[in-house]
Amino acid sequence: MPSIERLKLLVAYDGRGFAGWQSQAGKDGVQDALEAAVEKITGAPARVHGSGRTDAGVHALAQCAHVDVPAGKLKPTVWQTALNAHLPPGVRVTKVSRVKGGHHKGENGFHARFSAKGKGYLYRIWNESWLHPLEIGRAWLVPQKLEIAAMRAAAKLLVGRHDFAAFAANRGHEEKNTVRTISLIRVAKKGPLITVTFKGDGFLYKMVRLLTGTMVRVAQGKADLGWIRELLKSGGKKKTQFAAPADGLYLAKVFY
Amino acid sequence: MPSIERLKLLVAYDGRGFAGWQSQAGKDGVQDALEAAVEKITGAPARVHGSGRTDAGVHALAQCAHVDVPAGKLKPTVWQTALNAHLPPGVRVTKVSRVKGGHHKGENGFHARFSAKGKGYLYRIWNESWLHPLEIGRAWLVPQKLEIAAMRAAAKLLVGRHDFAAFAANRGHEEKNTVRTISLIRVAKKGPLITVTFKGDGFLYKMVRLLTGTMVRVAQGKADLGWIRELLKSGGKKKTQFAAPADGLYLAKVFY
Repeated sequence: MPSIERLKLLVAYDGRGFAGWQSQAGKDGVQDALEAAVEKITGAPARVHGSGRTDAGVHALAQCAHVDVPAGKLKPTVWQTALNAHLPPGVRVTKVSRVKGGHHKGENGFHARFSAKGKGYLYRIWNESWLHPLEIGRAWLVPQKLEIAAMRAAAKLLVGRHDFAAFAANRGHEEKNTVRTISLIRVAKKGPLITVTFKGDGFLYKMVRLLTGTMVRVAQGKADLGWIRELLKSGGKKKTQFAAPADGLYLAKVFY
Repeated sequence: MPSIERLKLLVAYDGRGFAGWQSQAGKDGVQDALEAAVEKITGAPARVHGSGRTDAGVHALAQCAHVDVPAGKLKPTVWQTALNAHLPPGVRVTKVSRVKGGHHKGENGFHARFSAKGKGYLYRIWNESWLHPLEIGRAWLVPQKLEIAAMRAAAKLLVGRHDFAAFAANRGHEEKNTVRTISLIRVAKKGPLITVTFKGDGFLYKMVRLLTGTMVRVAQGKADLGWIRELLKSGGKKKTQFAAPADGLYLAKVFY
């Protein structure tokens, strides 16, 4: 066996060109694009592990992934240049670094998914009667008036350690543990653009989009804070079905 | 003749979907899209007059145009909604107001082109070894190191009243008067993004792109300030051929 080394990759992508992060039969996942680029450089099959999935249309400013490659073949900066030369323009490796490898869960090496301590997301809302042409696919158009104070009050209820089962979509199997800690939800407004910043130790399937959609519902005056309290208390017996669309969501950072 | 009124339109567009502002045989100019939308509302042929052309791929934050329509048919805010309902998503009318009509040059009414007193442009440069996926078609990738101080020194020479013939592309006919006044060129840098803001009483064909390309040439250390002085003095006998690409250019404002 030739010796291998593990590379940590930071990856930015425009989610519109891909069927989400995860490898697809049609090879149109971001992961597929990265694996194909590694394989072109090494000439051998490669498996790229991401910190987690993103859905079709969701963007990434700094997704994190790792991949095992033949040791010492290229320097990290050369890996970056080589990968970008083989990737489609909609995906860019923004940083490559060598990390300690670990082949199994629980081992002491770096694993993009198992080593992750938390994540940061950004959600962009365009709050005007029309969507700016340069915001197509990049923000959610909400034409109704939004009460930012109500949105912030909703955010305040959601921050903390809660059972977020009410804010999880079904991915085909039940999530065993639906308790998560959200450390930050910040709502900022600048002209028609509202940005919502999320930080937490982990997010369930579609959770950021369900949190955003639910907060917007409150900001529209179509629901009140009592509803959010009920959702949080229900342990998933009640569910919110108001998911914000993929367009406005950006995976901003993975914390290790 | 039914009475008519003149509407002033502010228009934003993503230049990538169009063959530029001007009406085309293939009907893929932004002007064509606007005229088709007006015609769908009025049922009669319409002519939309812009403040000036933008090239294929050039974006607009606030292009200005006017159009004559049957008087009193719709309120300006209803015109805006109706126009946006008929326009492709890549073009949005961001404001409609009634203005005094004037059918001939020199008349005392508002004319999007003849009444314009100046324009503001924005140029975006991405100064990193790779283009961010979310900047595709929206910024010019310049991977070489740029000396911002040199770029600002170049800008300082270009500001003022000069014969800018050296910074004009040939549009098939000679421009009679190539003297223009640039009141502002501001260079700002934030991370890998460099923005250049231009204001002036008018710009010749491709002038903003030629100014930007020339300033970048100096910032790369491939040319010096003496070259810019020579270009300005030459009255067009010397020409710069370094035009920045359309992708990074935005018509930001038309002054009246």
